[in-house]
Amino acid sequence: MIPKQNSGVGAQMKAVIPYKKSRAKSRLSPVLNQEEREEFVEIMLDQVIDSVIGAGIETIDILSPSMHGLENMEKARVLLDKGDLNEALNRYLEQAKEPVLIVMADLPLLSPNHIVEITSTEKDVCIVPGKGGGTNLLFIKDPSRYRVRYYGSSFLTHCSIAADAGQNIEIYDSFLAGTDIDEPEDLVELLIHGKGAAKDYISRKFRLEVSRGRVGLSLI
Amino acid sequence: MIPKQNSGVGAQMKAVIPYKKSRAKSRLSPVLNQEEREEFVEIMLDQVIDSVIGAGIETIDILSPSMHGLENMEKARVLLDKGDLNEALNRYLEQAKEPVLIVMADLPLLSPNHIVEITSTEKDVCIVPGKGGGTNLLFIKDPSRYRVRYYGSSFLTHCSIAADAGQNIEIYDSFLAGTDIDEPEDLVELLIHGKGAAKDYISRKFRLEVSRGRVGLSLI
Repeated sequence: MIPKQNSGVGAQMKAVIPYKKSRAKSRLSPVLNQEEREEFVEIMLDQVIDSVIGAGIETIDILSPSMHGLENMEKARVLLDKGDLNEALNRYLEQAKEPVLIVMADLPLLSPNHIVEITSTEKDVCIVPGKGGGTNLLFIKDPSRYRVRYYGSSFLTHCSIAADAGQNIEIYDSFLAGTDIDEPEDLVELLIHGKGAAKDYISRKFRLEVSRGRVGLSLI
Repeated sequence: MIPKQNSGVGAQMKAVIPYKKSRAKSRLSPVLNQEEREEFVEIMLDQVIDSVIGAGIETIDILSPSMHGLENMEKARVLLDKGDLNEALNRYLEQAKEPVLIVMADLPLLSPNHIVEITSTEKDVCIVPGKGGGTNLLFIKDPSRYRVRYYGSSFLTHCSIAADAGQNIEIYDSFLAGTDIDEPEDLVELLIHGKGAAKDYISRKFRLEVSRGRVGLSLI
């Protein structure tokens, strides 16, 4: 059940999804070739956009260094920025006049309900940690007072940046929103907990391999 | 902030924590030797018991095949069962007259608040998925109608067992409760998100190693 989003709230914020299709997700190369990885990131992006739309957010920007794979994008606006991820996002935040939700494009387990809860925070900033120290979503009520620094232990960095700017934070605790798909073992989570096109794509190629430890992947 | 647990509710259920100290956590052997692993599981157990106590649950049983490491246990009752995990837990469930919360002993990021929320479910069964298809916590209101089957893809198995018995389920979505500590990469989550003695133990031996991908561990 998706709580009904007050359309006024969704209208007063915007979401930005950084995206790059070319040579995406190199850490999945042990199990998917480049063509497959590029197909797969496009499917994940589409699913993430649908989750954002489902949460009632009306302005969605895709921030990309290239139009590759975005030529026919109709669900969201495409903004080109050839800078690296942090430069591009910080330029975006500088220009934003309203609260901004930064959503990574590799979150196929994310639901509209997660997004509604994250953007309903009473704090200044809401951070969704990803595996291994990452930041999967970041909701910033006053983007003029916040700058991002992804890569490395970005979750801790983003907590510090908020604290240094005198902004209080909520840490949003979710296994599903916390599962970014970067490595082969993450595909296991998609097969177990996922739904939709991204799960279908992976389940046509792999099945779960059950042993005594954690479940693995094997080729179909 | 821990919501205050109605002591009546906590009194009407019990928690069981399966535990084995000897040769525990072999998958951590690349980074901790056997003596260290046995020390570490004892510290994690103590922290998990404190979370259960903090949630207001008054009856706590530790289910173990041996008294090793439990000789001086005062915070919980110790039940010996030399059967394997599933046999021992199913014998326990058969005899239970009240709702049972099964908590794995390797969840140092679990808080009392998680436990209060899990045991407040309106469904018959509440399941907390762990990484790689595991089941980290399982709350069963009517244990006479439920049997467990851990190992392998136990999360999916436990969902099916509930469905087959006509019991409805809640899936509790938490990054922190979903982080069981089995492999070296899990220690990264403990260093980033943890607190208390388990985090202190690991942070005396390792520090975070930051690179472009997920954060890793390096020796101090």
